[in-house]
Amino acid sequence: MEEFALIRALTRRFAGTTPHLVRGIGDDAAVISAATPMWWHVTTDLLTEGVHFDFKSASPESVGYRAAMANLSDIAAMGAVPRYVLISLAVPKGFTRKNIFGLYTGLLKACRPHGVTLIGGDTSASHTGLFINITLLGTTTSGQALLRRGAKIGDHIYVTGTLGDSLAGLQLLMGPESKGRSRRATSPLRTVYRRVLTQRHLRPTARVKEGQWLNHKGLATSAIDLSDGLSGDLRHICRESRVGAEIDLSKLPISIACRAYAESRGLLPTQLALTGGEDYELLFTAPPEKQSDLFKQAKTHRFHITHIGTIRPRRFGVRMKDTDGTSHPIPITSYEHFR
Amino acid sequence: MEEFALIRALTRRFAGTTPHLVRGIGDDAAVISAATPMWWHVTTDLLTEGVHFDFKSASPESVGYRAAMANLSDIAAMGAVPRYVLISLAVPKGFTRKNIFGLYTGLLKACRPHGVTLIGGDTSASHTGLFINITLLGTTTSGQALLRRGAKIGDHIYVTGTLGDSLAGLQLLMGPESKGRSRRATSPLRTVYRRVLTQRHLRPTARVKEGQWLNHKGLATSAIDLSDGLSGDLRHICRESRVGAEIDLSKLPISIACRAYAESRGLLPTQLALTGGEDYELLFTAPPEKQSDLFKQAKTHRFHITHIGTIRPRRFGVRMKDTDGTSHPIPITSYEHFR
Repeated sequence: MEEFALIRALTRRFAGTTPHLVRGIGDDAAVISAATPMWWHVTTDLLTEGVHFDFKSASPESVGYRAAMANLSDIAAMGAVPRYVLISLAVPKGFTRKNIFGLYTGLLKACRPHGVTLIGGDTSASHTGLFINITLLGTTTSGQALLRRGAKIGDHIYVTGTLGDSLAGLQLLMGPESKGRSRRATSPLRTVYRRVLTQRHLRPTARVKEGQWLNHKGLATSAIDLSDGLSGDLRHICRESRVGAEIDLSKLPISIACRAYAESRGLLPTQLALTGGEDYELLFTAPPEKQSDLFKQAKTHRFHITHIGTIRPRRFGVRMKDTDGTSHPIPITSYEHFR
Repeated sequence: MEEFALIRALTRRFAGTTPHLVRGIGDDAAVISAATPMWWHVTTDLLTEGVHFDFKSASPESVGYRAAMANLSDIAAMGAVPRYVLISLAVPKGFTRKNIFGLYTGLLKACRPHGVTLIGGDTSASHTGLFINITLLGTTTSGQALLRRGAKIGDHIYVTGTLGDSLAGLQLLMGPESKGRSRRATSPLRTVYRRVLTQRHLRPTARVKEGQWLNHKGLATSAIDLSDGLSGDLRHICRESRVGAEIDLSKLPISIACRAYAESRGLLPTQLALTGGEDYELLFTAPPEKQSDLFKQAKTHRFHITHIGTIRPRRFGVRMKDTDGTSHPIPITSYEHFR
């Protein structure tokens, strides 16, 4: 199959070397020399056409870019340095050479700035739809990582960046038929906002530097990346740390573009922020006494962080303080990758 | 989706711990502590229903078992110790809870005897067919691995075990409609042979111990596992080592069962041995002066190895000496995973 030859050629072309890479592509396994003690971080993601992405709303390049970014975000949430990537593809018959080239271009565009080296993968035919499996390896100093467990009662809850933009962007890309469109929609959305939001969906940024900063400085007690949405991912932190949490809805960082989009469709911006997936921001917790340090250092590094709530005892549950001051359990409305 | 909950439950149930595993399943990435210098070996395989396997000829348990074995075999060919596995599944709607349970049982049955620990994975829906992506990590002492490159002119070529059994088993499982059946077929095949061959296909054994032996003792100059068939995999060794090779067809180790099968269908046993994939034996090269050592040690360990040919200069090509003494290029008839 001609496509397989192209993938092999692209793989060899994009494959890199590092001083620690004994063998990359071309052997039964890639071989990495770990000369000094360290912690290895390994994550894998399987993305399916028609479930995680489709080519109606995204180009092959964007699909590749986002697939890599999802994994980079997992490594970012560990506070690790992303190092090596393995890419498996199951390719359907209609998938052209141009599409394959675009896909790889996107994958590598996401990986390159982080110095990630392609060291392996596999290729198969697919009877329907494209499947992408990515395995990403990262490293930290031994004994140093941001885990989901570790949040303590009284810790502050923070997020990086703004929330809900990716979901807004996706809904815009899906067009007027999108389920997200409400009949109450009235005002049109300015082109600049539309562009910002769709770009946030098509070209998200994993918070790799932010994760490393939090990890190196020992600032955070726990962390996770926001891939499924705040409501779901906060629950993961709470489960692993055996605590509860309270979010202050009025504090959620929501971009002007996302607010304008919500208004244009008659939606609640906080709803987008709570349930929207694939923002790839970091959610983390830190003791109250670190707050001034956190904000000072964040300012120096030009990292955008927002204090959105507090860790509570487990029996408190996972709740939100609404803008009117009332408290409710956060509904389980996590971004489920199953259409 | 109920199946996802089952997979999560199975994953947590089957997930293990090791003294070096800081975090397994349940965080953004698995975390492994590498306290001493070592080499890490990483391999990934994507297996597709209708391409690499189907449920007409194999149970979910066997499919899981073989998927894990394909990866174990890659690690075996490096002479490495398999350590950690990540399993991604894309599950079609019709795939029942019982099937999922069978698949995991097979995966874990293959991994357990080697002490491999499940540390991560991902799950997705699939619109058609099951997709399995496995990533396996292994280790060796620093500086010690069996690579594909390293074969020298004059080296002897060896294989472990017997060749062609898996293809014969597959053809038997595919039934009388199989392409492998010749109209010249005459004699019936004894039940015991049928059972041996189908088991070799459904329950192959990766030569993990043999690989470690060759690596530790520094006996081999190069190695590869026979997943695509001798004719294709020998070419990989030759390409990476920049050499040619000559195989003596009369020396190929072919089981009595495989010979009987070939006769029953009017096929050439050497043809099955050359082209049959998924035997998961090791093909390796060693200097002539190591021969007596090799055979002596193999006997002690009860490893079955056969000297089947010699490494030649690159310009010689990849050839075979036929039983009548004539020499021919080995045809490119590699087992292509694309139906």
